[in-house]
Amino acid sequence: MNKHPDYLLNRVKSPADVKKLSLSQMEKLAQEIRTLILEKDAAMGGHLGPDLGIVEATIAYHYVFNAPKDKIIWDVSHQTYPHKMLTGRADAWLDPDKYGDVTPYSNPNESPYDYYTIGHTSTSIALATGMAKARDLMGGHENIMALIGDGSMTGGLAYEGLNNAAIEKHNLVVVVNDNQMAIDHNVGGLVTALKKLRESNGQTKENPFTAMGFDYRYVADGNDIKSMIDAFKAVKDVDHPILLHINTLKGKGYQPAIEHEEAHHWVMPFDLKTDQPLAPAPTGPNANSVAMDVMKEHIQNNEKIMAINAAIPGVFGLDEIKEKYPNNYQDVGIAEQESVAFAAGMAKEGAIPVLFENSTFLQRAFDQLSHDVAANDLPVVMMIAGGGISSESKTHIGVFDQVMVSNLPNWIYLAPTSLAEEKAMMEWAIKQRKHPVAIKMPVQPVPTKGGQVANDYSRIQYQIKPGKDIAVLALGDFYASLGKKVATKLGATLVNPISANILDQAALDRLAQTNKVIITLEDNILDGGFGEKVASYLGGKDVKVLNYGQSRVYTDEVPVTKIYQQNHLTVDQIIDDIQNL
Amino acid sequence: MNKHPDYLLNRVKSPADVKKLSLSQMEKLAQEIRTLILEKDAAMGGHLGPDLGIVEATIAYHYVFNAPKDKIIWDVSHQTYPHKMLTGRADAWLDPDKYGDVTPYSNPNESPYDYYTIGHTSTSIALATGMAKARDLMGGHENIMALIGDGSMTGGLAYEGLNNAAIEKHNLVVVVNDNQMAIDHNVGGLVTALKKLRESNGQTKENPFTAMGFDYRYVADGNDIKSMIDAFKAVKDVDHPILLHINTLKGKGYQPAIEHEEAHHWVMPFDLKTDQPLAPAPTGPNANSVAMDVMKEHIQNNEKIMAINAAIPGVFGLDEIKEKYPNNYQDVGIAEQESVAFAAGMAKEGAIPVLFENSTFLQRAFDQLSHDVAANDLPVVMMIAGGGISSESKTHIGVFDQVMVSNLPNWIYLAPTSLAEEKAMMEWAIKQRKHPVAIKMPVQPVPTKGGQVANDYSRIQYQIKPGKDIAVLALGDFYASLGKKVATKLGATLVNPISANILDQAALDRLAQTNKVIITLEDNILDGGFGEKVASYLGGKDVKVLNYGQSRVYTDEVPVTKIYQQNHLTVDQIIDDIQNL
Repeated sequence: MNKHPDYLLNRVKSPADVKKLSLSQMEKLAQEIRTLILEKDAAMGGHLGPDLGIVEATIAYHYVFNAPKDKIIWDVSHQTYPHKMLTGRADAWLDPDKYGDVTPYSNPNESPYDYYTIGHTSTSIALATGMAKARDLMGGHENIMALIGDGSMTGGLAYEGLNNAAIEKHNLVVVVNDNQMAIDHNVGGLVTALKKLRESNGQTKENPFTAMGFDYRYVADGNDIKSMIDAFKAVKDVDHPILLHINTLKGKGYQPAIEHEEAHHWVMPFDLKTDQPLAPAPTGPNANSVAMDVMKEHIQNNEKIMAINAAIPGVFGLDEIKEKYPNNYQDVGIAEQESVAFAAGMAKEGAIPVLFENSTFLQRAFDQLSHDVAANDLPVVMMIAGGGISSESKTHIGVFDQVMVSNLPNWIYLAPTSLAEEKAMMEWAIKQRKHPVAIKMPVQPVPTKGGQVANDYSRIQYQIKPGKDIAVLALGDFYASLGKKVATKLGATLVNPISANILDQAALDRLAQTNKVIITLEDNILDGGFGEKVASYLGGKDVKVLNYGQSRVYTDEVPVTKIYQQNHLTVDQIIDDIQNL
Repeated sequence: MNKHPDYLLNRVKSPADVKKLSLSQMEKLAQEIRTLILEKDAAMGGHLGPDLGIVEATIAYHYVFNAPKDKIIWDVSHQTYPHKMLTGRADAWLDPDKYGDVTPYSNPNESPYDYYTIGHTSTSIALATGMAKARDLMGGHENIMALIGDGSMTGGLAYEGLNNAAIEKHNLVVVVNDNQMAIDHNVGGLVTALKKLRESNGQTKENPFTAMGFDYRYVADGNDIKSMIDAFKAVKDVDHPILLHINTLKGKGYQPAIEHEEAHHWVMPFDLKTDQPLAPAPTGPNANSVAMDVMKEHIQNNEKIMAINAAIPGVFGLDEIKEKYPNNYQDVGIAEQESVAFAAGMAKEGAIPVLFENSTFLQRAFDQLSHDVAANDLPVVMMIAGGGISSESKTHIGVFDQVMVSNLPNWIYLAPTSLAEEKAMMEWAIKQRKHPVAIKMPVQPVPTKGGQVANDYSRIQYQIKPGKDIAVLALGDFYASLGKKVATKLGATLVNPISANILDQAALDRLAQTNKVIITLEDNILDGGFGEKVASYLGGKDVKVLNYGQSRVYTDEVPVTKIYQQNHLTVDQIIDDIQNL
């Protein structure tokens, strides 16, 4: 039921209704939107600070421009809650029963006011430049805008975009939403450049944007609706590329989000009165705490080790290392290419770089994983979070890192089945100074103990629990959650294959001789995965091989249980398959 | 035999010997090096313009700094011929019998003066920053320098590197070798910025580098040894990041290379007197001419089509389109992320973007292939050159694009077996407006006619030439060069599988029923490839599957015939394998 039937927002069915509002009504609307963001985020979790900061700019945009003909590309699109509220989707904030009705990112299946499914950073300028070029080719005249900021400017593609946008011949506006933050505090030379611009009210000649040829404009208070309306009116229909730099306050309207910006970039459900999360903090060891303990042990042991990440310390709980051991901590900004090449440089000099990467964002660094690390066979250690089948948005699913990394030469890709195994693998990866090693941190719960706890993973030797007729090779976190159960029910042999890309061929030969069927299970897509390698290796032998994993599709906020069901990743379905073979 | 026993260079066995030379001797040395570059390139081919332009800077570097303790990272490392000559490898230029003794890129297996195998652009600043950080962590004090330029500055990683280098606390020098060129003429906003700097003799306040916090220095004539020595002395041992902008002349000393810079960036063997290539230009249709004909037909037909490339028009013969149809041609600079996201933007707006990508450089755009194109299922057409097993340097081998693209959802990855099939696939890819389509242009000679010339490749239907007991599935350019021969010798069924990632399951079911063995052949690495998908699909059936392709290793200038031999990719080896099964 609508919680705020009195809100002005109820009368805004589309941007046309925004255009009818007075300035004071728009200011009231901004307050309502802010309250709604906070209420829904408190109940459901979601992006918080970025959305609170962009409310006024969004209202002004829809007041001035004529969407969807005029087009705005929201970089990352994690700041589109206000935009969604103004483009016919307000019910998903007004009515708690409808909280789940819209997706957290821009979504063309949801609205004609959204043009792309976007969730990764730094793409908006390039997308907008392509759209502007297509418009020109097709004889159109609409306004095209990219709105980028909140750290996205540290990614290389943002710069490639600027480099190309600057020389376009017709209308194209790049809005730099400068809130002085990445996901974590912004880092790097661009911080310096933006600071000089802010402090000179946009007047300094030391301006990287005018240097590139942009017509540059500055708005000192990007949270003032009137200023933003004036700024947008001034750039509308202008026939050349413009860079509009707006200074906004991330988290505006919610003091805790202003004071602790990183913790409020994205939030889990929380209590609006106390700002405390509703769910208790996890206790006991987990995949993160194991990795942090290993790091601390080596740092305290005075080893030349460095925890490297790309603006996501919170994903791993790296904050303690960041604070206590700043010499052993490096945040390169949202710039995964840099993180991996930087790690290659450190490894070459004999230091021990440990990368902490998120599976989906690591996609930006494929060439560095290959060209800089693998082709030079440098001993970089890489801990990967979020790798596996999940209910994430389609832009954030983590099923491609294994494909990228494990099919490259020289990389050793390990998948622990327990926390003890994760620790042993990480210790070995740090100690050996020969090859790059990736460790897929479990995303499903795994036991604390057990697994292949070895001193040396340079030669993969399968750990085998013997059974009869059928062998189940269950990789990583599928070992305990699925493989063990399937093997028990079938009385089958259970195997921990340890690595996604290095096969224990001798063990496979023996298994092929003593079994009729070999099953592989992996928490990943099948294409380019572990199972296909086993099927290929055993292709010439007299044994059947069945590969289980996710099919090659994008899932989009689909519950994992449903994805499992669709891909026969349940005990009963697998047993059925075997019986019907 | 040494062709120039009188050269001063004979006495330079290491950089220590450079330090003993007078300025006039160094100037003589520069002339010798230039002559040697020209003589060897004329005989063997290689990078020309970049090396001719960097001779003086290289001499000055080794005069001032103490390599290999002081370290210089050459971006792309395609300009390292002078460096190699001064670091103990001059014989490979002085003596034509030894021309083949050194590799064309920096190579740590060859010399302690080289630190990485490098061949891709824009990585040097990030590598150097990682090295500087490791040095600090380990208590060292050596000078670390990245030398970048010749177009490399358009790549996003260069900017990520600058962003992080600018805030380093200790010695780190970034040399921007500004020769006003990418591989093709440089494009974008940075061109404007560098021009303003050159024209103001480095004095303009509109300086993107000082804006980022760099201590900036400018050398107006980077081909003057004295100026470069002075500049290097001034930055040596300085305890903060410095950006040294040097203005050099690409191709200096060889007039044709100055006048036609792109054609002389990299050359095939040529006549020094006439500047004409020694080998006659290829005649008749080929993979490039087919693609260019299709493009021209659609442009002339007034379709809203765009040929997009990342600074490599010469690889595809795009020059005619560039000159005759500038509205249908877009060069985004060396910036593959941009090229792919830009294409996504065009496709979204209803135009027809056709990407022309080089397999190895496409690695930089993995996230855009996934996040921007595939997750949005946009009809981008992508022609891929250089995809396949080759004798290239390890940084330039083209065996990973198929792994990247074909394992992503929504992409249709096609591999033509003839020029007629390439044309039909491209025509269909342009016409259908539903999905992204990649076409792997043949790198081995293929017949003009034949193949699966269809009007619709949305449903893959295998073309089957029946034989007995054994079926040979030969993908792309391996169909004619290998598959046909194997099938003929064995009396086997021959299949053109058309696509690397979409299987004709009905045909495979039939083939499994009527054959004892199914062989897959692909011009690619096996891991994450086509064969593994076939083995996986047929894993539960009573048929043996043998996958042929290259194993998961980096090859480095290994003759293809040797790679074939090592991987059983010859007719006789395959037949042997079958007989021993």
